[in-house]
Amino acid sequence: MHSLSTAFQTLANRFGNRFSRSPALRAQHGGGETHHAVAAPDAVLFAESTEEVAEAVKLCAAEGIPVIAFGAGTSLEGHLAATEGGLSLDLTRMRKVLRVSSADLDCTVEAGVTREELNAYLRDQGLFFPVDPGANATIGGMAATRASGTNAVRYGTMRDNVLSLTVVLANGEVIRTSSRARKSAAGYDLTRLIVGSEGTLGIITEVTLRLHGIPEATAAATCRFPDLVSAAEAAIAVIQYGVPIARVELMEKRLVDYTNAYSGLTLPAGDTLVFEFHGSEKGVAEQVETVRGIVADYGAAAFDWATTPEDRSRLWKARHDAFYAVLAARTGSKGWATDICVPISELAGSVALARDLVEKAGATAAILGHVGDGNFHVMFAVDPDDAAELDRVRAINAELIHHAIAVGGTSTGEHGIGSGKIDYMREEFGDAALALMRAIKTAIDPKGILNPGKILPPA
Amino acid sequence: MHSLSTAFQTLANRFGNRFSRSPALRAQHGGGETHHAVAAPDAVLFAESTEEVAEAVKLCAAEGIPVIAFGAGTSLEGHLAATEGGLSLDLTRMRKVLRVSSADLDCTVEAGVTREELNAYLRDQGLFFPVDPGANATIGGMAATRASGTNAVRYGTMRDNVLSLTVVLANGEVIRTSSRARKSAAGYDLTRLIVGSEGTLGIITEVTLRLHGIPEATAAATCRFPDLVSAAEAAIAVIQYGVPIARVELMEKRLVDYTNAYSGLTLPAGDTLVFEFHGSEKGVAEQVETVRGIVADYGAAAFDWATTPEDRSRLWKARHDAFYAVLAARTGSKGWATDICVPISELAGSVALARDLVEKAGATAAILGHVGDGNFHVMFAVDPDDAAELDRVRAINAELIHHAIAVGGTSTGEHGIGSGKIDYMREEFGDAALALMRAIKTAIDPKGILNPGKILPPA
Repeated sequence: MHSLSTAFQTLANRFGNRFSRSPALRAQHGGGETHHAVAAPDAVLFAESTEEVAEAVKLCAAEGIPVIAFGAGTSLEGHLAATEGGLSLDLTRMRKVLRVSSADLDCTVEAGVTREELNAYLRDQGLFFPVDPGANATIGGMAATRASGTNAVRYGTMRDNVLSLTVVLANGEVIRTSSRARKSAAGYDLTRLIVGSEGTLGIITEVTLRLHGIPEATAAATCRFPDLVSAAEAAIAVIQYGVPIARVELMEKRLVDYTNAYSGLTLPAGDTLVFEFHGSEKGVAEQVETVRGIVADYGAAAFDWATTPEDRSRLWKARHDAFYAVLAARTGSKGWATDICVPISELAGSVALARDLVEKAGATAAILGHVGDGNFHVMFAVDPDDAAELDRVRAINAELIHHAIAVGGTSTGEHGIGSGKIDYMREEFGDAALALMRAIKTAIDPKGILNPGKILPPA
Repeated sequence: MHSLSTAFQTLANRFGNRFSRSPALRAQHGGGETHHAVAAPDAVLFAESTEEVAEAVKLCAAEGIPVIAFGAGTSLEGHLAATEGGLSLDLTRMRKVLRVSSADLDCTVEAGVTREELNAYLRDQGLFFPVDPGANATIGGMAATRASGTNAVRYGTMRDNVLSLTVVLANGEVIRTSSRARKSAAGYDLTRLIVGSEGTLGIITEVTLRLHGIPEATAAATCRFPDLVSAAEAAIAVIQYGVPIARVELMEKRLVDYTNAYSGLTLPAGDTLVFEFHGSEKGVAEQVETVRGIVADYGAAAFDWATTPEDRSRLWKARHDAFYAVLAARTGSKGWATDICVPISELAGSVALARDLVEKAGATAAILGHVGDGNFHVMFAVDPDDAAELDRVRAINAELIHHAIAVGGTSTGEHGIGSGKIDYMREEFGDAALALMRAIKTAIDPKGILNPGKILPPA
């Protein structure tokens, strides 16, 4: 549709083979990792600098051509579908770590740096970046989706760990949203407005992040419970007690089986919590004893320790591969992940509801989650060509979302709205708040060229 | 100017003596606690519910009458001046704690509840709300100003501790910005957009807050250093070491003298850090030992412990009264507080610059601050009628702000922009980011009735 535009001709002349209309490349840039339908953009540009992003956005803005930022392509809610065509701005060549300050515990990276690359870069300086959604996503993509993951219960989400952003606006202008100060009361919080805006308010090209010192001591253990609700209740109790736990992850017994098969682990069968403790040697020992005492009340088996760093890496790699482990249990399937987040006191009831819905449907699925935050997923392995099955999963997803909103929670803890949750925005926020979001979108992107069709349902 | 409006007549009829045009009351509602000129509103309304606020805003919106939210009146940067007249919406009668959940560690309060009222209410349940700007501000005002204070280094600021807000928009519509979930990736972060918007994007009427369990053990101590820079460097080292300190406050030696005189303390004379440690008994002991080892390298004297809860209260009360202690050192003076916040590695240099500027000017002033965040103040006691003196302080303030911005910091760590810092917004954010803030303001408040003349300089 936009293939004969002047903008595209200019981009082709300017960027040579970094601008492409190859059908395979376009298709690869029009979808994420789940069941959502692919919608290929009309072209892909591999940008290498903020200036190039600004140049491309200006050219597209002049003709009203949609622009969709693309990082690792690990979206789970249809964020990347070019439903109105346009240009996919691939930022994966912007992968420089621009600066690290161990004195200030912060760094600035280009948007295309991945989480694993950044942590590999930081390790020698005794630093790490804690936000860990599992996927090896780009930092820009993680900021755009307000990602969180396993460490969020201790270290917060991208909301808490982004200090400042460099952003290309819809008119091609470049802003820096904030300073490197740890806190500021100056002006509107543009950083937090852009974090989680899913490419609809601006294209993130650089990110300044808070860092943390690698803890003196780390310990990780799995712990089996008599049933799923006991495991959830134990996690709730640990949080309510105020233990500064680094990670507390729920793995339903089916997922333990899938993961043992897929990742070659030998976890004892059963509904399981995975704990990680960070602190001083003494602090970790104290946390472990406290948690051991708490979980005993919920029928926990003994802690099964991942003693060496290699054991820990294998355990967390397996946890991160849970999505693929579920898919591997059903040949040819696609993933569909629910993502509700509820007040912690509502977690056990919500998990029980999810389990009942899954069992009734007889689906290939497993429950897992970042239960310390009240956030969990049901990972479904679906046949993408079976409309009736997709409808059944859609109904379960909808029921969980209605439930989450009814008990004071949210439709999405970390995966974002994209197009996948767009129909629940009104239920979650109400008409007046939605109108406010639309007014902000229109003010910032009056032509609607930035990732159209995402977050905001039609008025 | 607006005194004969239909809106005011309607409000007078509707609210009786809760609507007032008394000159004394108007004057009291037109200023804060510092040197900024008072500009009285045309009338004051004591609202008692979100619905009443919405009703008043609708009436004012119809006639383009400015509306300025008013809490405890502890503003330091001219937020409350009704420079275009209008209605002061006093929210101090909205002081109900609406709900507390110890299971979820959160609560919802009306905007007029003060910090001290909330903590008194929570104490019996073993909970506390940590954000502590010193002043007994209202929770609504603290959210509107993105307040922080002494505990922010450990517990974060209002940005981090507000889960959700009820807000009356400029058109009189009421929104709830978010859910009670600890994290969410749903839609634009309206909560963080409103936090720190100083009443210019909406009137906050209810606030849902994160709470914390009162720590098992608390210890507080003062510690004297050979000079100001050594004290600052010791604070930097504590932060860089990663000690989870609850508070680390710098008190310049003059302030120690002023405070001893004003609050009847007997702190040893000298540049001082005030520490507070929270945790388990063992955890606090470990933190204390770690910090003791660190500060010894900077020539620290022995810790002087505030042993009993009463001692601790007296110490922190004195710290909070520092502003008044400086004023008391000069009869008839008004306060003027600088508020820069810099990356922690720049703190010692910034404090040294401030000290040199104050000494050169021979001003009655003292340096103090939340140095764990890189945030500090110079508290000046100024003669509000001496234009030349005000110019000298203004120049020092400007030089500190230029310095903060140049080293990657901000013009205000916690006091906000109001009208007092408005001239530095361009320097801090640049034209494009300012234009973006203006676009947001115009989209949300097209008639510009909400606290006009604050945050955004004229285009």
